[in-house]
Amino acid sequence: MTAPLPGDDEAMGLALAEAVRAGAAGDVPVGAVVLGADGVALATGHNRREVDGDPTAHAELLAVREAAAATGSWRLGGATVVVTLEPCPMCAGALIAARVARVVFGAADPKAGACGSLYNLCVDPRFNHEVEVTAGVREAECAALLVGFFAARRGR
Amino acid sequence: MTAPLPGDDEAMGLALAEAVRAGAAGDVPVGAVVLGADGVALATGHNRREVDGDPTAHAELLAVREAAAATGSWRLGGATVVVTLEPCPMCAGALIAARVARVVFGAADPKAGACGSLYNLCVDPRFNHEVEVTAGVREAECAALLVGFFAARRGR
Repeated sequence: MTAPLPGDDEAMGLALAEAVRAGAAGDVPVGAVVLGADGVALATGHNRREVDGDPTAHAELLAVREAAAATGSWRLGGATVVVTLEPCPMCAGALIAARVARVVFGAADPKAGACGSLYNLCVDPRFNHEVEVTAGVREAECAALLVGFFAARRGR
Repeated sequence: MTAPLPGDDEAMGLALAEAVRAGAAGDVPVGAVVLGADGVALATGHNRREVDGDPTAHAELLAVREAAAATGSWRLGGATVVVTLEPCPMCAGALIAARVARVVFGAADPKAGACGSLYNLCVDPRFNHEVEVTAGVREAECAALLVGFFAARRGR
């Protein structure tokens, strides 16, 4: 784990706005943004599993795919992915596959998190690439969105 | 790990044909097929990372997405994914996310395999779903495709 950098809070604001979009559409509110090496946003994404009926439509995976399409290359070297919830194994694997430099997340996911909770895939030196991890950026806001979403569903 | 079932060899034949398509297009030759609970093929996929410029375009991930689109649901309960190469963390995570019942693979991947080599994500009881794993089906043919592909690239 590495410490937050200037700009992480602001980038998480973009990811939070994406998460709100997911929740408004009935999907679990998780959002992500991909920043290029210059810190400029290349792509955003939010969880669309229910809306798209696609089990792989997690926020980070969609944002990574969109960033690759925008740059014309599957290699996102130098990029940072900022996401409201700790990536699952699929998404952590996608960050490694895309050669992302760094991932920043908000809320930890004790049930499925693969960036420190259940696994720490991004910093396993046996893979051909490692991704630097920063945790806990705007954690309370990221977690509150999820808690509110599930509380509302239970109340139905 | 569980033993192969009748039909696994034949299904791997479909996955091998997909792998050949990937190699012919210049991508690492890996192919996959998704079978429904009745054993009928729902979707196929082959590695398209280079062709599509998409870091997530692995054979299994594409086949899972196509199967979900074909069935109209992100839940692929009862499905079996048959793939020529041991899934990486991203793809193993996608199998869990899609609630696939079983994965059958051919060649092991000692560098990135997450179904027995470096990790065994599919059978981790801490996740909300486990995927049964069968390894080594038509392993020699699956591995030979990969060895031939990389030998030809070195020879250029």
